[in-house]
Amino acid sequence: MARKHILHMLTPLKHMSPFDVNMALDAGFDAVVPYVDVGLGEVTGLVQDAIFSRPPDAGVDTGIFIAGKDASLALDMFDAARKAMVPPFQVSVFADPAGSFTTAAAMVAKVEKALEKKFERGLKDTRIAVFGATGVVGFCTAVIAAREGAGVTLVGHDGIERVKQIAAEIKNRFNIAVDAADGSSDARKTKLVEASEVILACAKAGVQVVSKAQL
Amino acid sequence: MARKHILHMLTPLKHMSPFDVNMALDAGFDAVVPYVDVGLGEVTGLVQDAIFSRPPDAGVDTGIFIAGKDASLALDMFDAARKAMVPPFQVSVFADPAGSFTTAAAMVAKVEKALEKKFERGLKDTRIAVFGATGVVGFCTAVIAAREGAGVTLVGHDGIERVKQIAAEIKNRFNIAVDAADGSSDARKTKLVEASEVILACAKAGVQVVSKAQL
Amino acid sequence: MARKHILHMLTPLKHMSPFDVNMALDAGFDAVVPYVDVGLGEVTGLVQDAIFSRPPDAGVDTGIFIAGKDASLALDMFDAARKAMVPPFQVSVFADPAGSFTTAAAMVAKVEKALEKKFERGLKDTRIAVFGATGVVGFCTAVIAAREGAGVTLVGHDGIERVKQIAAEIKNRFNIAVDAADGSSDARKTKLVEASEVILACAKAGVQVVSKAQL
Repeated sequence: MARKHILHMLTPLKHMSPFDVNMALDAGFDAVVPYVDVGLGEVTGLVQDAIFSRPPDAGVDTGIFIAGKDASLALDMFDAARKAMVPPFQVSVFADPAGSFTTAAAMVAKVEKALEKKFERGLKDTRIAVFGATGVVGFCTAVIAAREGAGVTLVGHDGIERVKQIAAEIKNRFNIAVDAADGSSDARKTKLVEASEVILACAKAGVQVVSKAQL
Repeated sequence: MARKHILHMLTPLKHMSPFDVNMALDAGFDAVVPYVDVGLGEVTGLVQDAIFSRPPDAGVDTGIFIAGKDASLALDMFDAARKAMVPPFQVSVFADPAGSFTTAAAMVAKVEKALEKKFERGLKDTRIAVFGATGVVGFCTAVIAAREGAGVTLVGHDGIERVKQIAAEIKNRFNIAVDAADGSSDARKTKLVEASEVILACAKAGVQVVSKAQL
Repeated sequence: MARKHILHMLTPLKHMSPFDVNMALDAGFDAVVPYVDVGLGEVTGLVQDAIFSRPPDAGVDTGIFIAGKDASLALDMFDAARKAMVPPFQVSVFADPAGSFTTAAAMVAKVEKALEKKFERGLKDTRIAVFGATGVVGFCTAVIAAREGAGVTLVGHDGIERVKQIAAEIKNRFNIAVDAADGSSDARKTKLVEASEVILACAKAGVQVVSKAQL
């Protein structure tokens, strides 16, 4: 009997995401087990509990998945999980809160490809406005794009306060500077669109962030 | 690799029912994942989270099961789940709180068959007393039988108050009239038995609702 | 299609143990389902819910696993689970809180084997000191060794109070007498080592209970 692929799915939220469960099973895991309402302080114990019951060479078949809707918390949990390893007993760890890491990476990659194809340039110094920047996908997109050298502005649909805090968090955690802007009115949004070369819409499904007229 | 059959099992209770888990796995689902303590207001989010991570044609292989012990709440959750679909992204939804929908349907079907075989008649205008009517199976049995035209009386082992409320709920939700009766003493039960053509015992396992002498 | 092997995993704790999940899946179960925060009073309901949805001959393919970190509670839950059976409807029940029952049994068996091989004697009247006796493995080890006739002393790293309570619990539950000793200083530990023929170290991973010099 081949060794089973097991995924322990950790979320700080009340419920595991059915989206993530589907993805994990479709990716080939034989068994997925949810652990909900997991605090950062519980990660070490859960991970160490997972690593000693299979031989060291089974680590690659045993996965820890970190879910949730908060990128910073997910990164902290990811770090805690990695530090909990006791080589040669190690397991795979993967974080993707609300699919944001993969979604953001794909979004930035698509933009990079389009820039290259249409304008023969890269992300470097490209002026990018991230609408819907208060969400986890916007957060990750901003970080990845800024890391690639883009000039990123986080646009807040409810004013500048929250996006300013997010910019500060990005500065603090990744040492990357991004701007914050107030996008709470149509006039303000139009101005931001005019000042940008690329607009990334990261708002919730069903929300129109910019009208056709503003483009 | 064939696509896996995944069942997301939602219950408003603290624990998923092991009964339902066994049934789901024996019915052929490859993976079942419990979500406990689910509020009615959380159903939309969970269902929408489930529908977008697989291609539209996989909807039939992705199921939402609504469990619990409350038929009305299960029906409300079922409605919420159906309204959460975003065609062509849709998944299968099935509600059967405490097995009551299937149990009640089977019970009424058996009665219908027996009536036809032995008396060449149907449920129409048959006088049915539902003992143990304060439970979820009794509730569903009453609704199904009354819909088929039977004259249904809910019998309360602890008096008439609770079954009167249940009758009002059935009237309100399904626009079906059923009677309520006090079955709190042996004398009252004997009277109700005499007035009925069919008796359905829906009480808990281990409870004797009517003695042999009363029949 | 062969009948699936299903394991319902019950824990009184907030999270199921990933260790136990791995073990169960590697042992051949096709599906494992966690039930967390399970109270002793909930065991009967959960077990009875599990036994009626499969035919009686499937009982051996349906398992109840009792986890946690408390041996006494696990034994109480185990008893409750066994009493919940309704023959011929029965399922398999297995308790192993924090792996302690199997770990302790293996530990004592190893000692027994070594005593026989090196000294041609058994556990009977062997003086055994259990360091780390406040944990669940220490508890079980003490019970098993004492049952085999060893003279067991529970050593408390934080004084004698907690191990005295544990000794009382062992007396009360199993009618087995074990001693308790204060092992809170190096001097006390050295004395206990000198008075013992066998030392069992049951402390947490990473804790050194006795130094090389003390042996």
